[in-house]
Amino acid sequence: MIDYRSDNTGRAAPEILDAMVRANTGTALGYGADEWTARLQERFSELFETQVRVFPVATGTAANALALAASSPSWGLVYCSEAAHINTSEANAAGFFGGGLKLVPVAGNHGRIDPDAFARTLASVIPGQLHRGQPAAVNLTQASDLGTVYPLDQIRAIADVAKGRGLKIHMDGARFANALARLGCSPAEMSWRAGVDILSFGATKNGGALCDAIVVFAPELADGLAVQLRRAGQVWSKMRFASAQLMAYIEAGLWLRLAAASNAAAARIAAGIAGLPGLRLIAPVEVNELFLELPGAATMDALERDGFQFYRRSATLARFVCRFDTSEVEADALIAALRQHCAGQTDAGSARAAE
Amino acid sequence: MIDYRSDNTGRAAPEILDAMVRANTGTALGYGADEWTARLQERFSELFETQVRVFPVATGTAANALALAASSPSWGLVYCSEAAHINTSEANAAGFFGGGLKLVPVAGNHGRIDPDAFARTLASVIPGQLHRGQPAAVNLTQASDLGTVYPLDQIRAIADVAKGRGLKIHMDGARFANALARLGCSPAEMSWRAGVDILSFGATKNGGALCDAIVVFAPELADGLAVQLRRAGQVWSKMRFASAQLMAYIEAGLWLRLAAASNAAAARIAAGIAGLPGLRLIAPVEVNELFLELPGAATMDALERDGFQFYRRSATLARFVCRFDTSEVEADALIAALRQHCAGQTDAGSARAAE
Amino acid sequence: MIDYRSDNTGRAAPEILDAMVRANTGTALGYGADEWTARLQERFSELFETQVRVFPVATGTAANALALAASSPSWGLVYCSEAAHINTSEANAAGFFGGGLKLVPVAGNHGRIDPDAFARTLASVIPGQLHRGQPAAVNLTQASDLGTVYPLDQIRAIADVAKGRGLKIHMDGARFANALARLGCSPAEMSWRAGVDILSFGATKNGGALCDAIVVFAPELADGLAVQLRRAGQVWSKMRFASAQLMAYIEAGLWLRLAAASNAAAARIAAGIAGLPGLRLIAPVEVNELFLELPGAATMDALERDGFQFYRRSATLARFVCRFDTSEVEADALIAALRQHCAGQTDAGSARAAE
Amino acid sequence: MIDYRSDNTGRAAPEILDAMVRANTGTALGYGADEWTARLQERFSELFETQVRVFPVATGTAANALALAASSPSWGLVYCSEAAHINTSEANAAGFFGGGLKLVPVAGNHGRIDPDAFARTLASVIPGQLHRGQPAAVNLTQASDLGTVYPLDQIRAIADVAKGRGLKIHMDGARFANALARLGCSPAEMSWRAGVDILSFGATKNGGALCDAIVVFAPELADGLAVQLRRAGQVWSKMRFASAQLMAYIEAGLWLRLAAASNAAAARIAAGIAGLPGLRLIAPVEVNELFLELPGAATMDALERDGFQFYRRSATLARFVCRFDTSEVEADALIAALRQHCAGQTDAGSARAAE
Repeated sequence: MIDYRSDNTGRAAPEILDAMVRANTGTALGYGADEWTARLQERFSELFETQVRVFPVATGTAANALALAASSPSWGLVYCSEAAHINTSEANAAGFFGGGLKLVPVAGNHGRIDPDAFARTLASVIPGQLHRGQPAAVNLTQASDLGTVYPLDQIRAIADVAKGRGLKIHMDGARFANALARLGCSPAEMSWRAGVDILSFGATKNGGALCDAIVVFAPELADGLAVQLRRAGQVWSKMRFASAQLMAYIEAGLWLRLAAASNAAAARIAAGIAGLPGLRLIAPVEVNELFLELPGAATMDALERDGFQFYRRSATLARFVCRFDTSEVEADALIAALRQHCAGQTDAGSARAAE
Repeated sequence: MIDYRSDNTGRAAPEILDAMVRANTGTALGYGADEWTARLQERFSELFETQVRVFPVATGTAANALALAASSPSWGLVYCSEAAHINTSEANAAGFFGGGLKLVPVAGNHGRIDPDAFARTLASVIPGQLHRGQPAAVNLTQASDLGTVYPLDQIRAIADVAKGRGLKIHMDGARFANALARLGCSPAEMSWRAGVDILSFGATKNGGALCDAIVVFAPELADGLAVQLRRAGQVWSKMRFASAQLMAYIEAGLWLRLAAASNAAAARIAAGIAGLPGLRLIAPVEVNELFLELPGAATMDALERDGFQFYRRSATLARFVCRFDTSEVEADALIAALRQHCAGQTDAGSARAAE
Repeated sequence: MIDYRSDNTGRAAPEILDAMVRANTGTALGYGADEWTARLQERFSELFETQVRVFPVATGTAANALALAASSPSWGLVYCSEAAHINTSEANAAGFFGGGLKLVPVAGNHGRIDPDAFARTLASVIPGQLHRGQPAAVNLTQASDLGTVYPLDQIRAIADVAKGRGLKIHMDGARFANALARLGCSPAEMSWRAGVDILSFGATKNGGALCDAIVVFAPELADGLAVQLRRAGQVWSKMRFASAQLMAYIEAGLWLRLAAASNAAAARIAAGIAGLPGLRLIAPVEVNELFLELPGAATMDALERDGFQFYRRSATLARFVCRFDTSEVEADALIAALRQHCAGQTDAGSARAAE
Repeated sequence: MIDYRSDNTGRAAPEILDAMVRANTGTALGYGADEWTARLQERFSELFETQVRVFPVATGTAANALALAASSPSWGLVYCSEAAHINTSEANAAGFFGGGLKLVPVAGNHGRIDPDAFARTLASVIPGQLHRGQPAAVNLTQASDLGTVYPLDQIRAIADVAKGRGLKIHMDGARFANALARLGCSPAEMSWRAGVDILSFGATKNGGALCDAIVVFAPELADGLAVQLRRAGQVWSKMRFASAQLMAYIEAGLWLRLAAASNAAAARIAAGIAGLPGLRLIAPVEVNELFLELPGAATMDALERDGFQFYRRSATLARFVCRFDTSEVEADALIAALRQHCAGQTDAGSARAAE
């Protein structure tokens, strides 16, 4: 079996589990008052080239929902892409933690919000129309849920629109490292320097084990969030084991090496199937995911018989996700299988990055 | 320094981190659809001698709050001891997850609810008095927040009162293993056979690392809870690392050995200071905690100068908690220090288990 | 000035205020334990030809949000039309009272859900996909927010789909009387006999003053709702003044006479502008509202200069709402003004009921 | 029957219903954008001698819960008297609207918070102890739930303690007029000049019909509250009928005359039973309520046989409440009945104001 189901089906990077084992010495105060967590604040502040507050949390859903709850009153409207994870896949956790805040999808392409569409949407909400709720925040998934990446100027354009109405900017960085590896910019450039106030910093999908984090750039959001995290059951008493994971994750560029590896595997597959008749990528392959229209269910069945695991998004749309340890052999096997099963297709819908 | 601050300041049992490392192989479906989590269901069902549903969660606060939210409508009254952790130390997480449910303290002694007081309290709430909210559940901390243990017949008595009004019974078992080691009974006897519907199963304070669990005995509570956990951000995508911890925790009696060790350290200290003038235990030492009235702040200062770490609950009340790896040498050091600092005290309030 | 802004800008029917004055005698127990409220239960049970529970509430928003909160767990998905009032105009009150439940728009035409689209939407939600939340209820606005009415068989078709998945059916009857007057059926036929479990029974828009009501057909929803209403601040201590209003509203067919009058005024206008060039009704005029595409903003300006008040929904879309006391003279004045301002338009988009 | 059950069992003052009838003319914009509501802002600003925002709401529970939700984050602690209505009688509406905020009873006498006890309670909460939640607001019931009144200096003393920690001060003025009539001071003196930030302004218990109000003195609380009221279903579309009631209530001193009348009836009864053996008032009679310990259940039974209606708070404690239209004849009848049924009692517990 070759697993392309998700990047969370994979192993943790050994360095991260090693760090937990190394942290298992002596006693340490609970609930984040330990030395590991203090060092974590320093390391992330260096990494982001500004003073940040970092809060380890158990999951990306917790990171997103609590970051948004900190960014919006309960009557707030939170704008997001139609494909955004908070909208499609988190059981409305944002609405729950946010006391009834409402997600409002905004048009765009390939899982991204279009800045102009966002500006038009916001302009249609007249302040004082209490019956609609009030704009409060915007959520960007970087990388997006269709495997694309916001260029820096698009982040800035959306942030400018948002700031003009006093909205907070939240980035869902479940695949932050993959996007960073793709853009080749600094963490600061892709976050607060582009206008981001608060970040869900993902590690799990990129070789982490049991924690992600919230990184707070806007200091006024941090103190309230700290209490909410406690009551949300997201503050481990033995926090050192979480902080140690996160420090190992960014130590010596580990996170970027892991992300570069999964991105490269996806790019290899995309290159290997370019021009194949009957295949169509519905979005450019910019990080570690491929969303691929196949000729039909028979092709999916054939791939599964060959031992490939992946998710069916519809009768003809398959998602393939590469992990940090997806090998070139595995990538080439998928290319070969796709070539084989698409032989004989017309070239009407040949595989290419979507426009 | 000798640390008596809490059982969550300590290390994890190495077996538990080893299990994580051993689970780091191959790929596995996310969000609990993996083999480790499937085996966890079987192991816990064997352990509790009945079919249970087990949900790993990040913290005891999450376990308590989500278990209570599953046991009560949002207008419910949840009865608990005045000293209960959910009432004093979890930032009203139960009220938050429970949509505004209300905690109602019930009288009792040494951190436990008195069954008769509970019966009287419930009897005073006339059904249909909508303005008061409606009784929904009762919470028992086993072991209690003052280091005592409910005997089985007291659990059953409280459960009988509760069942008579249709209430659910939740046990906060942050120190479940310590209580079990003390009573010497089976997990089933101390939980569902005594009437418990849903259990916060603690591991962290007893050698765990990053997870506790909710164990559901009343099957009608489980499906809704499963969705709530997802939206609460308590379902790890790499769940295998949590499930592996919990299986290692109960493997070959590890959890009971760890609990017996910390209980024994506390009992050793209690025995060693028995009869010392100027000391008074405010509750019997039944598990791994001592709540000790000292002659005054000067004694506390002296202990700290000697290198002992502990929590001050008031000007004269100190809490000492033993960990699974608190050694006999450390226990004896505390005894010696207390003997030294109490020399010259009158024996008016000599150390003994409170009545 | 002639006011077509809304049916809530109008007066109350004098009979309703008279009933309050007549109820102002003697003492009566508070919070709904009075004789008026007891009689209200009887009258509505007769009206609906089945045993119902009736809860007076202050507003339609409260009725909708609390009815939905009673029909759905906090992780529920509530399906509704894209144009539904709960989705566009109630500040996500349903999400708030429902503890984070999520509204999911379903396609259809003229403000109504299409049964087939609803069936397809539901079929796409696979039970057990916890990350999406769980289908819980469907909301129908009768009459719809575009002034159309669900035929009985369409209600039944939607209810059948919903019941097949265990969903509750909520009807937002802010204009229940207008729809009833249009269909000429019985209240029972348009509600529980068609599958409705719980109804927001509007009075305010149709000559009421300060209260609407929730009518519960599914008895299992009533007891919890009663407590929620209390804590929601929707249970008046002097409830008799609300119950008296609602009884006067349905006494001797008053409500249906009022609704027939506003429906007739709208129909008169629709007939009077039929075939006018440059006008287009975007939905059939089935109750007391007209949604009219005008040639442009200049026409709107001209109408306002003529003294007509109405809402602009876009640069060219105007909404005109008739009240129970909108007179034939007022209707004819609007017709005349529209005829005047549309003279000289091409007939490309002549006024007609939308397809 | 002579009704002493509550001041909400009584009639509305006819002036208030008359005002509704007079407001029933012409059309008016909905949701508070009408002329009556604009005038209401002016009248209340004059009455309170400062610029206020006034929001009519349906009930006192809504007023209290929404005022507190505006004054506290969801993790806030709200201090109140043990006897406070928000704590005993509103189904934890504050916890619900406040997203899980927690009520913390503070000691005091006769239904009032003691300023020193409050200061001690606050001092015990160390900032940064996130696990306890964070102090956010204090609630004063004026008049109290035991029929007593806070002197102005006691309000100021509590407000000073609160302001010292950044807490908001909320006054539950369900019987604001009764307290004002008792103290003889101005509305400003008893509210914002004494430190109150936000007031639940009761009318219903003192001759109102279907509305109370929230009066906001701290301007930063008003805008958010306005949205919350909308989503809470507390903004009537025909708001003029509520605003007209509130203006009639304060017109030409009506409210104070009504309150003075019910206060006088209670004072007359208290004077008439002074010194009677076997009776004991558990709190001074300062407004319109008497809390009276009777010799036993037999006395209660006898009073009921005589035709008196009242609430039994315990086997021996009865509550008698006077309404604005409780007559001297009714008061004298109660005095006579108490004299009769207490004849033969020893004078050990003779009726007197409690110390």
